[in-house]
Amino acid sequence: MNMPIIATANPVLEAELTAAINNKTKPLGSLGRLEHLAAQIGLIQRTTQPALRAPAIMVFAGDHGVVAEGISAFPQDVTWQMVENFLADGAAINVFARQNCITLHVVDAGVNHDFGNREKLLNRKVAAGTRNFAKEPAMTAEQCQAALQNGRELVAGLSGNVLGFGEMGIGNTTAAAALMHKLTGVPVADCVGAGTGLSSDGIRHKQVVIEEAIALHDDVHEAAAVLATFGGFEIATMVGAMLAAAERRMVLLIDGFIVSSALLVASRMQPAIIDYCVFSHLSDESGHARMLQALQVKPVLQLDLRLGEGTGAALVYPMLQAAVNFLNQMATFASAQVSEKSSA
Amino acid sequence: MNMPIIATANPVLEAELTAAINNKTKPLGSLGRLEHLAAQIGLIQRTTQPALRAPAIMVFAGDHGVVAEGISAFPQDVTWQMVENFLADGAAINVFARQNCITLHVVDAGVNHDFGNREKLLNRKVAAGTRNFAKEPAMTAEQCQAALQNGRELVAGLSGNVLGFGEMGIGNTTAAAALMHKLTGVPVADCVGAGTGLSSDGIRHKQVVIEEAIALHDDVHEAAAVLATFGGFEIATMVGAMLAAAERRMVLLIDGFIVSSALLVASRMQPAIIDYCVFSHLSDESGHARMLQALQVKPVLQLDLRLGEGTGAALVYPMLQAAVNFLNQMATFASAQVSEKSSA
Repeated sequence: MNMPIIATANPVLEAELTAAINNKTKPLGSLGRLEHLAAQIGLIQRTTQPALRAPAIMVFAGDHGVVAEGISAFPQDVTWQMVENFLADGAAINVFARQNCITLHVVDAGVNHDFGNREKLLNRKVAAGTRNFAKEPAMTAEQCQAALQNGRELVAGLSGNVLGFGEMGIGNTTAAAALMHKLTGVPVADCVGAGTGLSSDGIRHKQVVIEEAIALHDDVHEAAAVLATFGGFEIATMVGAMLAAAERRMVLLIDGFIVSSALLVASRMQPAIIDYCVFSHLSDESGHARMLQALQVKPVLQLDLRLGEGTGAALVYPMLQAAVNFLNQMATFASAQVSEKSSA
Repeated sequence: MNMPIIATANPVLEAELTAAINNKTKPLGSLGRLEHLAAQIGLIQRTTQPALRAPAIMVFAGDHGVVAEGISAFPQDVTWQMVENFLADGAAINVFARQNCITLHVVDAGVNHDFGNREKLLNRKVAAGTRNFAKEPAMTAEQCQAALQNGRELVAGLSGNVLGFGEMGIGNTTAAAALMHKLTGVPVADCVGAGTGLSSDGIRHKQVVIEEAIALHDDVHEAAAVLATFGGFEIATMVGAMLAAAERRMVLLIDGFIVSSALLVASRMQPAIIDYCVFSHLSDESGHARMLQALQVKPVLQLDLRLGEGTGAALVYPMLQAAVNFLNQMATFASAQVSEKSSA
């Protein structure tokens, strides 16, 4: 029942968008990345007059069995405590989403905590955290499929055409680094980073844990199997949501290292999904630059963020607005009676 | 009567700001550049709870006699035509200022055109364009002082605490490149760029024009004299406005290559002005990276813009809002009862 994701390529529309952008009262190409964004959003929405409607960010939370290996600077309880912080409007993503009038949805994809019945929390808990992938696969194939399906269903309930992705899960840079290595072949040493703040000894230990786990599960290759073996419930749910959002021709705002790892998985399932993605920012988490390189994409912002939660996705949103606004609202050389380029 | 600009350094307040930022529910340093912005704005406003009030952008327009040397891809008439476009709300800066609720002020600092009496145009015309600095100084010392004073008076009329700077003036990347070379010693070849769209032949010609003018005026060294010899009325008026804005402890949003050249002049007069500046973006105009390096500052955005008008200043504003908002609105580890970093 899932539709294949269709590439946005459309030479006729692309030429129309280029002409519309070039006729605006500005030197050719002088709005740089905003011009690329305007053209991309036009192609996604199949129009020369794109519009952003009801933007939302979904923050997916999940716990990771691999924390038993001591790979995080923060205790696992921080996952559920930060979910409470999201629900109480106190986290960075709350502040940035509110600033930009973006609706925030918080999803329990598999946190190791009983939240009870909470009005503002979307309960899609597959299990109370994954198992420890240093010992066994993080989830079963059935659990992984359930998470993917949860993500799809969450997107079905949205009314807007822009969806940002965020995450919370102590230990999830370890999962993301393992996914990155398996799907890109980049050496583990170049995939691991400090996460929430490991020391250099901590980073080396994290690398060893991942390398041993990679050796343990060396027969796993196909994207869904890699996701089940090393991923988290928040990552798998996000993959399902990304696939569904691109099927619906939404603009996908990809945040930092962990969200990019989910997109990497999704892109191995449906390569054309990349056309729908805005890579919000270059994270300060050290593997992110290599991951974006592997995806052959360029981030919009470079603010040395490494917080997650979808903060980069919220912060890039005004740049999308600027792109759409200049395309829709600026005068043309003809309408403003401004002389065009003369010479030299 | 002009006050010296005072450095914002304040170790006690800086420690308080650092503590406030570090106590927020996020890994240490994980909001990157936004943390630096929050601290900078706090120091400027002398508070741990900074607020942005009534932001404004002033676009200064002026014409340049040096266009007679054929150094621009667009005819001089585009300066006044674009001023009309600003007044008619059709330019990129109109779109971006409106998007971010920034009040736009348009200043005729010395355009070679009679606009008549126009309600929305601030008439501070010193003369109908500068003279050709390839033959003689661009302005007299008296004209330069008049422009500086105009800038000061314009700022006296503002009520907010954030001021962005923009410009419009065909030929003004040539003036800015000459100012940059004189004040930094960077070779002219590294100061010139394509401006509004010169070919490589055009860029080489522009370089020769500047090098010959530098040789012609080789006895000019002091900042105000350099400004009078090579500057434009829009640049000199901007320098005055920048000095006055920093005296009033406003946050200054520095746009691209030309605005940075004005700030370079201002910083030679009052070095502490740098403390009040946010360097909005790295322009695609090739000399800008070297100019920011000479100023020892880092830009916030890197969007390959090269449009001027203050567009980068308008686009960076949401990042300032994000910086102030996270500092004022995020929960602390204690208030949200989130566990702090444990180990590793």
